[in-house]
Amino acid sequence: MPEDEAAHLGRVLRLRPGAPVRVFDGAGREWHAEVADVRPHGAAVRVIEPVPASPEWRAAVTLVVAVLKGEKMDDVIRDAVMMGVCAVQPIISARTEISAAALGRSGRVDRWKRIAISSAKQCGRAVVPRVPEAMSFDAWLTRAPATSEMRLMLVEPLAQVNARRLRELPAPDRVSLAIGPEGGWTSDEIATATAAEVVPIRLGARTLRADAVPLVALAVCQSLWEDI
Amino acid sequence: MPEDEAAHLGRVLRLRPGAPVRVFDGAGREWHAEVADVRPHGAAVRVIEPVPASPEWRAAVTLVVAVLKGEKMDDVIRDAVMMGVCAVQPIISARTEISAAALGRSGRVDRWKRIAISSAKQCGRAVVPRVPEAMSFDAWLTRAPATSEMRLMLVEPLAQVNARRLRELPAPDRVSLAIGPEGGWTSDEIATATAAEVVPIRLGARTLRADAVPLVALAVCQSLWEDI
Repeated sequence: MPEDEAAHLGRVLRLRPGAPVRVFDGAGREWHAEVADVRPHGAAVRVIEPVPASPEWRAAVTLVVAVLKGEKMDDVIRDAVMMGVCAVQPIISARTEISAAALGRSGRVDRWKRIAISSAKQCGRAVVPRVPEAMSFDAWLTRAPATSEMRLMLVEPLAQVNARRLRELPAPDRVSLAIGPEGGWTSDEIATATAAEVVPIRLGARTLRADAVPLVALAVCQSLWEDI
Repeated sequence: MPEDEAAHLGRVLRLRPGAPVRVFDGAGREWHAEVADVRPHGAAVRVIEPVPASPEWRAAVTLVVAVLKGEKMDDVIRDAVMMGVCAVQPIISARTEISAAALGRSGRVDRWKRIAISSAKQCGRAVVPRVPEAMSFDAWLTRAPATSEMRLMLVEPLAQVNARRLRELPAPDRVSLAIGPEGGWTSDEIATATAAEVVPIRLGARTLRADAVPLVALAVCQSLWEDI
């Protein structure tokens, strides 16, 4: 077992050899297993048989989200993993209040990776979404999109395309959904993104808190495309 | 001005006579105004002209939610108001971990009313949703529904009606959406409710945290029925 999971198993849950557990590899596979060995600094389990993992979205959805202030990103990561994204890409946009350098020193990306693991465990997902290092919004825009990737950008309160109209499109295989910081996108960012064929969408007339926007947007996408 | 708003205006914002403010009556009307008078224990504003209030849902949606543990209900109230409900009805169901009597003594309903006001202000709603005293789920069930009220009940993970199928129905004028506590509904509660023509729905296969369920469910309803 990885060191921190071993510590949880031995010192928090106080499991002993023979105790039944379920283990997953973070990449979509899950097993019935039993504890084989517990030591002060490690633990081993014996895999018994595979179990069907909980279903994932048909679409591979990446939340591309400008880093929010304070602890709000913790909730955003936790919620996005719960909602079934395959990755959360933190970005630095013009109005993000932290620089890439300060973010790098802060260790927050490592913290978000740990939150992604714990949210996957809490929600019974056998997949742990990736949380890569932050990149600038410009770097994300100029990166070539994957084949058949639909790139969306939430633009509030400017009303260009209503998310509802996405329903008229065939369900995509791969989606990136970009969400700005508390202060929103600059008009330059919106112009550059639309020139790069990113589709600007909105979520209706309501004013949402910045930390709630990703969850609401993912719920709407799920209701448009998935079995919900 | 109400006493606590007057205190906020005078002691926190430190506004003085002549300062421009926007005021709303909690029932859907909003005005440009200016501060007329500030005293140690009160404040008055002079209304200048009405302004168009932000739009409300076409449907009057009531979130009927079993009281969750600890502070989680605070977030539920705040999120539901942000999403545009017209009321949040707290209920006590078989698996709610607090009794109606303990809830009454705790003062939590008054706290939720204050949270409803502050969330309406934060989200620019001119309507403050009602948060009535808690009632038992049975009492809610046996109360006669309003004319043309659609009553829904979120039942996880039992898959009876997929929320997506609600799209085939005409958008309702009045909806009550019932959501259970951490431990879910009992089978008796589900049977009694369906006998009372409450429609059981689900939100797909994903496991959601209890405190996130209302926000996700309201986002899905909004994407089904509203301009989103």
